[in-house]
Amino acid sequence: MLLKDHKKYCYALEMEVRDYELDCESIVNNANYLHYIEHTRHKFCQEAGVPFIEMHKAGLDAVVRKVELEYLSSLRSGDTFVVYLGLERKGPRFVFNEDIFRKDGTPVLASVVTAVVLKDGKLSRGDELAEVFKPFLNRR
Amino acid sequence: MLLKDHKKYCYALEMEVRDYELDCESIVNNANYLHYIEHTRHKFCQEAGVPFIEMHKAGLDAVVRKVELEYLSSLRSGDTFVVYLGLERKGPRFVFNEDIFRKDGTPVLASVVTAVVLKDGKLSRGDELAEVFKPFLNRR
Amino acid sequence: MLLKDHKKYCYALEMEVRDYELDCESIVNNANYLHYIEHTRHKFCQEAGVPFIEMHKAGLDAVVRKVELEYLSSLRSGDTFVVYLGLERKGPRFVFNEDIFRKDGTPVLASVVTAVVLKDGKLSRGDELAEVFKPFLNRR
Amino acid sequence: MLLKDHKKYCYALEMEVRDYELDCESIVNNANYLHYIEHTRHKFCQEAGVPFIEMHKAGLDAVVRKVELEYLSSLRSGDTFVVYLGLERKGPRFVFNEDIFRKDGTPVLASVVTAVVLKDGKLSRGDELAEVFKPFLNRR
Repeated sequence: MLLKDHKKYCYALEMEVRDYELDCESIVNNANYLHYIEHTRHKFCQEAGVPFIEMHKAGLDAVVRKVELEYLSSLRSGDTFVVYLGLERKGPRFVFNEDIFRKDGTPVLASVVTAVVLKDGKLSRGDELAEVFKPFLNRR
Repeated sequence: MLLKDHKKYCYALEMEVRDYELDCESIVNNANYLHYIEHTRHKFCQEAGVPFIEMHKAGLDAVVRKVELEYLSSLRSGDTFVVYLGLERKGPRFVFNEDIFRKDGTPVLASVVTAVVLKDGKLSRGDELAEVFKPFLNRR
Repeated sequence: MLLKDHKKYCYALEMEVRDYELDCESIVNNANYLHYIEHTRHKFCQEAGVPFIEMHKAGLDAVVRKVELEYLSSLRSGDTFVVYLGLERKGPRFVFNEDIFRKDGTPVLASVVTAVVLKDGKLSRGDELAEVFKPFLNRR
Repeated sequence: MLLKDHKKYCYALEMEVRDYELDCESIVNNANYLHYIEHTRHKFCQEAGVPFIEMHKAGLDAVVRKVELEYLSSLRSGDTFVVYLGLERKGPRFVFNEDIFRKDGTPVLASVVTAVVLKDGKLSRGDELAEVFKPFLNRR
């Protein structure tokens, strides 16, 4: 869901834990949070008008360079949660702030994902993408 | 969603392909279909009133003995699909017929999952579970 | 490892359970067995001289049509196991019999995977592949 | 493999890309690197004498609080790679430096994983674990 009047975030996606994502401690395995935030970025791009597959066909590839994850609490079987996404541009880099909260408001994960844009395989300034993302960029 | 008046199926769950489920041929990797049908069984059990975790705490474990999967067509990025579930009892075995259709009606997967019930770790007739599942059992 | 003098199997691959493959019952999640047997087929094809990527580039795609899995016992943290692979041809279909045993000999999984070969996207008789696989085909 | 005379790393594990880990761009999906480094930590703990399952039974749980991943190049089908692990203690925190190199020496991933130790569910100083890890701690 695109968020129009939120200061920090421009997109939110509600998801639910699936039991196959749990590990032997009955909590969601750490790697699945990367899946959650990747899926949220792709859905955001799609709703913002630039599906990954289309971008790829147009010779543009957003490539993740860096991920920072802070685990605040664990998701468990039956939990519903929301991934919030905020977007900033720093030179050629696009910085996604993606935070997960359990439906009851408990903070679960804080993350920062830094991506660059390759144009025909070469590092670019990402101007085409910046143009599309303009209405969503955080201007803090 | 529990289906009350359907002859073959008693439950349906709509889902959507996530890009991390694709493999290098840009189609959903075969193993993910097992995830889709497992998640559907767990959601069905939950809505039918017997969440897996609760069952487990009560000493009852439904254990998969056999899975047959027929791949009819491939899911791709952006596809939405529905998993339909039908349930039969054959002696001590519970047989789940789980069929996946793309939102446009294209058949994607036909599967049969056979499970038995362990009570305190030993094979049981599964009568407690059969009682709960009674309204949903297929009586063809 | 290609097996030269075995009657039933022509390939064996030793692997080890990774803890992220366990689910909340501390056993390997059912879907991971599909990963194990897929990885074994790909390694077999590679050692037999036809890596999947090469096949794909040559316009040949082996596509799984059917999978039957029988779960005999569960793998757990720390387990080492061997996937054995046997291969038969039935008309245009290639049938992989893949059985998993724990290192101590305990049967874990029996599976049958049926694949067909698409040539430039169309169903073919698979003669090119049959030629390559000839030394490995089971002639029971 | 425990490394006795290396200044930065105390453990190394060789692995190989499995085709089901690739995504639709034919490179290993970002989330799988978390699997690689988690598996390496677990193998290290096991060889250092404290398997996760044993720790857990003794009431000690190492819990990941923070992960930083820097993606330097992509792994592809057929690649073999080595995960190197170094360990430091910073107060109650254990800091794992885990770096991945392709077999030909190309840097693939640099990561820092920070964990704390819960004793019977409460944050502890981790002295028991520090004792076990003593021979492996980096003293830069």
